[in-house]
Amino acid sequence: MTSKFSQDLDQNPGNHQPLTPLGLLDRAADVYPDRIAVIHGERRHTWAEYAQRCRRLARALIGAGIRRGDTVAILAANIPEMLEAQFGVPLSGAVINSINIRLDAPAIAFILQHSETRLLLVDQQFADVARQAVKLSGLQLDVVDIRAADVPDAEPVGVIEYESFLAQAPTDVALRYPEDEWDAIALNYTSGTTGNPKGVVYHHRGAYLNALGTTLYARLNAGTPVYLWTLPLFHCNGWCYAWALAAVGGTSVCLRKVVPDEIYAAIRQYGVTHFCGAPAVLSALVMGKPKDWVRPETPIWVACAGASPPVTVIAQTEALGFEVLHVYGMTEAHGVNTTCVVQDAWAAMGDDERLRRMGRQGVRTAVAGDMIVADPSTLQPVARDGKTIGEVLFRGNLGMKGYLKNAEATREVFHGGWMHSGDLAVMHEDGYIEIKDRSKDIIISGGENVSSIEVEEVLFTHPAVFQAAVVAVPDEKWGEVPCAVLELHPPYVGTLTADDIIQFCRARLPGFKTPKHVIFEPIVRTATGKLQKFKLRDHVAEIIAKREH
Amino acid sequence: MTSKFSQDLDQNPGNHQPLTPLGLLDRAADVYPDRIAVIHGERRHTWAEYAQRCRRLARALIGAGIRRGDTVAILAANIPEMLEAQFGVPLSGAVINSINIRLDAPAIAFILQHSETRLLLVDQQFADVARQAVKLSGLQLDVVDIRAADVPDAEPVGVIEYESFLAQAPTDVALRYPEDEWDAIALNYTSGTTGNPKGVVYHHRGAYLNALGTTLYARLNAGTPVYLWTLPLFHCNGWCYAWALAAVGGTSVCLRKVVPDEIYAAIRQYGVTHFCGAPAVLSALVMGKPKDWVRPETPIWVACAGASPPVTVIAQTEALGFEVLHVYGMTEAHGVNTTCVVQDAWAAMGDDERLRRMGRQGVRTAVAGDMIVADPSTLQPVARDGKTIGEVLFRGNLGMKGYLKNAEATREVFHGGWMHSGDLAVMHEDGYIEIKDRSKDIIISGGENVSSIEVEEVLFTHPAVFQAAVVAVPDEKWGEVPCAVLELHPPYVGTLTADDIIQFCRARLPGFKTPKHVIFEPIVRTATGKLQKFKLRDHVAEIIAKREH
Repeated sequence: MTSKFSQDLDQNPGNHQPLTPLGLLDRAADVYPDRIAVIHGERRHTWAEYAQRCRRLARALIGAGIRRGDTVAILAANIPEMLEAQFGVPLSGAVINSINIRLDAPAIAFILQHSETRLLLVDQQFADVARQAVKLSGLQLDVVDIRAADVPDAEPVGVIEYESFLAQAPTDVALRYPEDEWDAIALNYTSGTTGNPKGVVYHHRGAYLNALGTTLYARLNAGTPVYLWTLPLFHCNGWCYAWALAAVGGTSVCLRKVVPDEIYAAIRQYGVTHFCGAPAVLSALVMGKPKDWVRPETPIWVACAGASPPVTVIAQTEALGFEVLHVYGMTEAHGVNTTCVVQDAWAAMGDDERLRRMGRQGVRTAVAGDMIVADPSTLQPVARDGKTIGEVLFRGNLGMKGYLKNAEATREVFHGGWMHSGDLAVMHEDGYIEIKDRSKDIIISGGENVSSIEVEEVLFTHPAVFQAAVVAVPDEKWGEVPCAVLELHPPYVGTLTADDIIQFCRARLPGFKTPKHVIFEPIVRTATGKLQKFKLRDHVAEIIAKREH
Repeated sequence: MTSKFSQDLDQNPGNHQPLTPLGLLDRAADVYPDRIAVIHGERRHTWAEYAQRCRRLARALIGAGIRRGDTVAILAANIPEMLEAQFGVPLSGAVINSINIRLDAPAIAFILQHSETRLLLVDQQFADVARQAVKLSGLQLDVVDIRAADVPDAEPVGVIEYESFLAQAPTDVALRYPEDEWDAIALNYTSGTTGNPKGVVYHHRGAYLNALGTTLYARLNAGTPVYLWTLPLFHCNGWCYAWALAAVGGTSVCLRKVVPDEIYAAIRQYGVTHFCGAPAVLSALVMGKPKDWVRPETPIWVACAGASPPVTVIAQTEALGFEVLHVYGMTEAHGVNTTCVVQDAWAAMGDDERLRRMGRQGVRTAVAGDMIVADPSTLQPVARDGKTIGEVLFRGNLGMKGYLKNAEATREVFHGGWMHSGDLAVMHEDGYIEIKDRSKDIIISGGENVSSIEVEEVLFTHPAVFQAAVVAVPDEKWGEVPCAVLELHPPYVGTLTADDIIQFCRARLPGFKTPKHVIFEPIVRTATGKLQKFKLRDHVAEIIAKREH
């Protein structure tokens, strides 16, 4: 840039302010003061009230000695206080650490220690595990108990209850907006699919941009959205939806238990327009459809992620009056980074092809920057042929700051100037990506890559198969071969042999992709619902070794 | 921020890239390659083609010796090449200077000189004025002529035609994305309402954020928007809509002549969903309604700015099937900064009250940061009483870098850490602002502030009044008094006296706001349609002085 366009044209407070989602709360309270921001059972908060409660929480935290850059953790279901913490904790200058409610006490204790949590907010539903975790952590923690009318009373973990804590907030302290948009706003621990939990650090800039991007792809700006909290707020801060809803003055409907009855009840009672969930949530909705369900005139928008929704699940969900959008992202990148944008031309392709295309991970969002599928070492993009496998890499403003206190893992994930997703995918001719495997879960058999996901997809088309996981086992001849671990639907248990399954696959897959071993047993998942294939691999290898000797 | 959330958590290319609207073009070309991006008469470009033409323009400019930070100007109507320049010029590393086509040769020459323009793109409709301006400027300029099928041939100004220029673009040069989001992207000269033209410098960060903000408030993300270019692209780069449309893969319908017949024809032919314009455009649409106009099922969205749309104009426009949103902003802040968000509760208030509220300037957009109405010296916000007048001040990321080569004016407009709009407004109880005057146009009579706009609004309710302008004239007793300059509708000319008008106002306004003088004569506006009240004041003062002596 030559001098004339930079001379005497500096940044100043009038033309440059830190990007942050926190300002969206102030705007929502100003523009939509009387609109309902939060619904939980009989409870209602307008945006003015919600903002006031968030600010009170921030001031209470400051009053309790929380300083800029401290960690404040919360262990809670999707209740109003969890929504308040998404703004209230950062407004105190602290970093919000939303802990997975499905973890056990030792895992929570590890997170409290590693994050150096100064204060913990506990939903009384999780009082017991929180008490154990705090004890195990050995930390001198301040604990604030959140009492709720919809769960049984529990013995308090700390010495003060949430409402009393808010009530004692000083009124004369200033809220702490970020000094720089690169300041941390949130901390999210990911178990990943391998190794120890890592603390993913979010920045205000990324959180703000993803909030804006979310309003765009989810069309939250059409009318007043009513968003149902099926997606846990401890996953990527609810994919940034709490912040996105502030940008449009939308309504949050809290949900303690993500079960079909409660979801359908909320949809009917509050006119839900949007929600998010894993394919399992969609399947549950299909199975749990009320007898008197009437397909809504305007489809209810639902974003689906975590795994590719099977074609039949999309079709059945659509038939109920839901509009499904498949999205993909990762904890390390503020949540959603791609959406499977539905092209007009797909409508003419027939349902099979249309639904198959809708199951892909898709294209980058307007705020996600660049995305390539590439060789992770050379960074050379793969051909757009729907066949060549590479790693999904991102470069833009949604990448996390890095892993807390883990410079090595941070360097590794960003090596070569791209954020490495660890997911292997192909790029189709139309520029849409389709995930084929986790990079560490690919099976290399006779020098050929075998996508465990591709084999699982074939297994899922067998009517007897309820759950399926495919992993590599060592093989003298081929190096590795695929092994299928299967849980059958109850009526089928004991009616099928390993050979039946192998025959079934052989008819549908090339030989090198066909499982050589089949094991019938329950599939164990982590608290976040993830399959840890590195563990399953070891387990399966032992079984096979025993069988063969 | 304590160390743990900043240590080893630095920015790197994987998590931090300059914000810029230029990446939105790449994404649109990837995601919507076959959608129509540009329509002009028989001409069509898909997003893939549009992107390719923009890139070719950028490479042609680089091939012609344009360097980072050079100025490339364009003098063109809203034709496809004007849209191409919005991306193509910045992709060459240059700053785009879109020149007002209504200016005369000396004014254009001034802009060419002041901006140090290196290359000028000229729509042949403006060949004559461009030729004169280049000559007057004394600059050795490269000129590229844009030939168009829809205007008469003109003698070329330069030595190469646009299509030949594109054809000679080198293929082996890299496009120049910004090195920093604070780099300049555009230059827009504003005549303002006082003094000399000033060069407003836009930054990539602000352009990107306003593009995202625009998709939100204009709901460009619902389906495929078809945007009609009634708003000149030389006003704030078309309020950033060319960039916003890339974020959603929308369609631009070009329009050389903004007249009702052409607007209605485009609406019918292309299914226009969105456009923008001054209240005069709305009035023209009401007057020029085709006899066989059928109110569309889905209202056509129209943003209106430049002056507050009168209640009757909003009502009539709505009745034709348009949804009107009043927006407000300024060249100095990347275009639109506030929108008059329509509240659900207004529907129950009756049309008079609802339409009156819709005519206010409203509330800040989601990307506009903070806005206050305050005493410009003390920066103390005024009461939310709808009465106390203060200046509209902004603080956020939409403020320009500043005025080119005018450090003093830049310092002045940003003094106290806020961007001073120069507009005087009140803040209503509901947080909506309403502009009352330009700060330099307020009339101070007997120590009381008189808003010239308020008096004009009363005058407009008189059936005979076609145009009205109220300015201060010196008065021995009161310091200043209001003087009304009026253009009457033809049938009324000669039927009314100054006293008739004064009586009419006295019945509707307090004495100190009632005009003491009335002059019947045509009202002169600038090329941008602005009324330069400082000139009118001098002119009126002379007339009054002559009358009184």
